[in-house]
Amino acid sequence: TDVNVFENFKPQLNDAYRKADIFFLGNIDPDLQEDILAQVENPKMVAMDTIALWIETKGDTLLKTLEKVDVFFANDEEVKMLTGEKNLIKAGKKLLRFGPDLVVSKKGEHGALIFGQDMVFSIPAFPCEDVVDPTGAGDSFAGGFLGYLDREGSMKNDDMRRAAVFGSVTASFVIEDFGIERLKTLSDKDIENRYNVFRNLVSF
Amino acid sequence: TDVNVFENFKPQLNDAYRKADIFFLGNIDPDLQEDILAQVENPKMVAMDTIALWIETKGDTLLKTLEKVDVFFANDEEVKMLTGEKNLIKAGKKLLRFGPDLVVSKKGEHGALIFGQDMVFSIPAFPCEDVVDPTGAGDSFAGGFLGYLDREGSMKNDDMRRAAVFGSVTASFVIEDFGIERLKTLSDKDIENRYNVFRNLVSF
Repeated sequence: TDVNVFENFKPQLNDAYRKADIFFLGNIDPDLQEDILAQVENPKMVAMDTIALWIETKGDTLLKTLEKVDVFFANDEEVKMLTGEKNLIKAGKKLLRFGPDLVVSKKGEHGALIFGQDMVFSIPAFPCEDVVDPTGAGDSFAGGFLGYLDREGSMKNDDMRRAAVFGSVTASFVIEDFGIERLKTLSDKDIENRYNVFRNLVSF
Repeated sequence: TDVNVFENFKPQLNDAYRKADIFFLGNIDPDLQEDILAQVENPKMVAMDTIALWIETKGDTLLKTLEKVDVFFANDEEVKMLTGEKNLIKAGKKLLRFGPDLVVSKKGEHGALIFGQDMVFSIPAFPCEDVVDPTGAGDSFAGGFLGYLDREGSMKNDDMRRAAVFGSVTASFVIEDFGIERLKTLSDKDIENRYNVFRNLVSF
């Protein structure tokens, strides 16, 4: 893995960013994530993502940062790797003990498993027939998830479940085109319609 | 693959079996499946399972038998293989055109996707922390599925959805021990409780 432009990246947050309610630490170097988090004033929620590279090279820093994180996003292999557990359910629950209130384990075309205190929630991926480019699915999942919580202003278990569905809905649009193309033409109605498709998809 | 005892297997159904309402063709040689099906009098429902071996060696016979089948069970790789489609959603829908009313695409730890006319239903696997032996998960899924339909006597889309949940519930118990050990001590209450866990698992 070449981190390229992130090699010498040292972000300084402006005032507006420091005062943000909801904070998402993208999957950069855990030391940078720590740096950024130290600049934030009083966030209501801190979310974080990572990649296998940081688990392998900076696992300890990552676990330390995790103590300050409310929602941790990672793919299923990373959740297993970080905990040394082969069983995803065990791994997800174990990770909760490192600090986060919620562990969102993303499984690509198989959706996501979300672990919370006294909660396991399963959300499928949208049954997409024409995947154009899966790049950005994880980040847009996090975007839809956190965007919903920001709008609702509430973070109970039921809010988290709906947030995960909106995350999956957002990701399902992103992969239908390259980059953020599909998002540009997206309406509230499109999102609502697909939210209802998800409800139908799992109802019994 | 060695078919062993099935090499010279040529089952003759007794009268009671010929009159069965619901018929499940296990994953044996498609020619045998045809033979058995010809002995059945007037079933309300015919279900069928298969394995990759028969898709590779007797694909044509299999597709012919499929015309007479109502519910087809197969794992996701087999559904793709049989249709030549890499995308599971496309593959599942395409398979419906070969005859079945329902295609149950099993995905192991990721649950199952069920395709029907105007329906896609997604059911997760039970979040099992201690899988002892996954052998028999597929057959017990089919058993729970068909057993529920037999008891209910109705086969509408909503029944199919609940049947799939009972299939997943049954499979989730089977893998907690070797063989059918766990099933021997299973009560109606155990099944009902886990059915409710599934509802909670996907509710939002």
